[in-house]
Order: sequence, then C-alpha cells, then structure tokens
Amino acid sequence: MNYPNGQRKTMPVRIKQDKNTFSNRGMSLEEDINITNQFYLDTGRAVIHKKPTPVQIVNVNYPKRSAAVITEAYFKQASTTDYNGIYRGKYIDFEAKETKNKTLFPLANIHDHQIEHMKSIISQGGICFIIIRFAAYDEAYFLEAEKLFLFWDDKLNNGKKSISYEKIQNESYLIPFHFQMRINYLSIIDKLYF
Amino acid sequence: MNYPNGQRKTMPVRIKQDKNTFSNRGMSLEEDINITNQFYLDTGRAVIHKKPTPVQIVNVNYPKRSAAVITEAYFKQASTTDYNGIYRGKYIDFEAKETKNKTLFPLANIHDHQIEHMKSIISQGGICFIIIRFAAYDEAYFLEAEKLFLFWDDKLNNGKKSISYEKIQNESYLIPFHFQMRINYLSIIDKLYF
Repeated sequence: MNYPNGQRKTMPVRIKQDKNTFSNRGMSLEEDINITNQFYLDTGRAVIHKKPTPVQIVNVNYPKRSAAVITEAYFKQASTTDYNGIYRGKYIDFEAKETKNKTLFPLANIHDHQIEHMKSIISQGGICFIIIRFAAYDEAYFLEAEKLFLFWDDKLNNGKKSISYEKIQNESYLIPFHFQMRINYLSIIDKLYF
Repeated sequence: MNYPNGQRKTMPVRIKQDKNTFSNRGMSLEEDINITNQFYLDTGRAVIHKKPTPVQIVNVNYPKRSAAVITEAYFKQASTTDYNGIYRGKYIDFEAKETKNKTLFPLANIHDHQIEHMKSIISQGGICFIIIRFAAYDEAYFLEAEKLFLFWDDKLNNGKKSISYEKIQNESYLIPFHFQMRINYLSIIDKLYF
C-alpha cells in the first residue's frame, strides 16, 4: 500500500528472486534504499536512516484501553533531506529522487530549503549528494551536492530547469546494483572521499 | 497544545523576557533544544535537527481542491534517537529526556533499541550522548553514551534501574544556559571532543 509521499505502511520485505531474472522494476527507490541501509546496518558498515515523514498533527483521540489515534493530520514539507547518518566517521546526508522522464531530471523535484540545507552540510564538512533514478532505464546515479549547486544556480540565472540524462551520465556516477545492496552508494563514497 | 510524545502543533515561539527574571520552567526540553538548534543553524555553527515524530499512517483522504488529510494514524516508537546532525565535521547524535523526579533518572525512559543505535554510532566514530533535564532543579546534564552504557549494563545485570541525581552530577556535565542557546550542549562538546 502506497502513500502520497512514497511512505509505506510496513517495512519492505526481502523477496527471494533468481539472480539472473532479477529486475528492479516495481520496487520504489525508497524501498531499495531502505533495504540497502538495513544491510549496511546489519553488517556494521554504516548507520544511515530515512527520517520519518513529517506530519502536522491536529487531532488525537485517546480511547480507553487502546493506543492513541491520530484522527486529523497533514503532510508537511520536509525542511531537510530524507536520509542521514554516519559512515567511517563521516557525516552522510542525501536526498533520493526518481523520475519517469527518459531524457531529463526536472529540478522542480528539489526545493530551495533542501539546497540551503545541503549547502550548510557541505560547509560543516559533511558528505552530501543526491541519488537520481531513471525508472525507464533502471539506473541510479550519485550526483555530488557541489555539482547539483551548479545546475541549481544556472536555473536561478534563467538557465535550464532540468538536468539532461546525458549530463547526468557524464557528471555523476552510476551506482552499482547488488542483490542485498540494491543502491550501493557507499561504493561510490569509498572512491570519492576515502 | 501538547501531544503524547511531547510533540507540539506549531514551532515554538521565542518569548521576550526580562533576562533577570528569566526562568526556564514551563518550556519543554524539546522546545529549548529546538530554539538552541535554530540558533546554531542561523549562526552557521552546526546543523542539527530533531527528527519528525514517527507516525504509522493507515488512512488518507484526498478532498477535491485541498490538501490530503490523514484520518487515521498511530504513534510509532522511534528506532533511533531524536536528534542528529553535524558539527565541525563530526557526526552528532543524541536523545533528550526530562524527569520530574528529584532524586534519580529512571532508565525506563530509554529503550533497548536506542541503546543499540547509540552503540552503532559510537562504533562508527560519532559523538553520542543523552541530555537529561531535572525539571525540579531546572538543570540539564550532558551524559556521554559510553557512560550511559555502564549504567545500562548494570541494570541488565540486576543492578539499579535508575541513575541517582548525585551520580549524574558527578558523572556528567551541567549544560550552561544562554538566552539564545538555552541548552548550549556544543560548549560541552567543544571541551570533550576538540
């Protein structure tokens, strides 16, 4: 069961599949990253979590002898990125976006305050990036925040409102797929930052 | 308006007060930490946020021409700590708890999985601690996770189910109060880790 912001009711279940016929399609990017993060956690490699979906609670009922029920609440826009944590002593912070577009990634997927947040993280010495998945090609790319800022600034100066698929191929890193690390972004971090 | 887990409906408002008559009482620990974190952020000192309250969403309505309304949801227990972020290149992670007890801090305020999380953070090289406020004395203490683990292990070995106020005074650090940094925990981090 899916919710508007991609949140799911329950934790994703690991599905056994034949490795040769495996296809990523049908799994949301969030699910794939959650599975990857769980594997990193289980193997002691990193501690990286998705933040809960921010919700503005307006009304709560307290039935006798059972749990409090939220009866009115609204989705709030996140003021930061969705994922953060620690890897090899470094602070890790990223956002993940999926597009069905085959030729470009629209920058409208990112919000001003997320860029501001990312800039603050970089200035504190953190590792910050965005994962962009092109659903049509089943490819996920690792784009460093510093490069994203260049595209963003260009947009603000009446430049392009999107990043072409070609530019993403050239400017960012294809994230390898592994059965248990479906979006194995730490392999990119190992190469770039250590 | 308060909710079961201490979450508030709106962001805390900064209240102008005469500095000499200022008393912390009436402000929740969460509010004080949020104000402090906002000040750290505004002054470029650190990027540390409270994670949103985890909520399990069961039902959502989509009225025409207005925002989606969550009509059924439940509070979930957090699997990590409440606050994390980055300061001077270091990963920061902590939990904050307030007690009305005058003589001890009950360890029942902390959950197993939070201790597990804290241990993972320490093993990755992060800075991890707990802020404990004694409401009766208007005092907030900074207790390193490594010390908390000792009390926790003692509890598991049929030891004390709480930490006495006296032990907290001896084993942890009183966090200084500042008008704009009401729980100025970075001052303790500066002394302990840099």
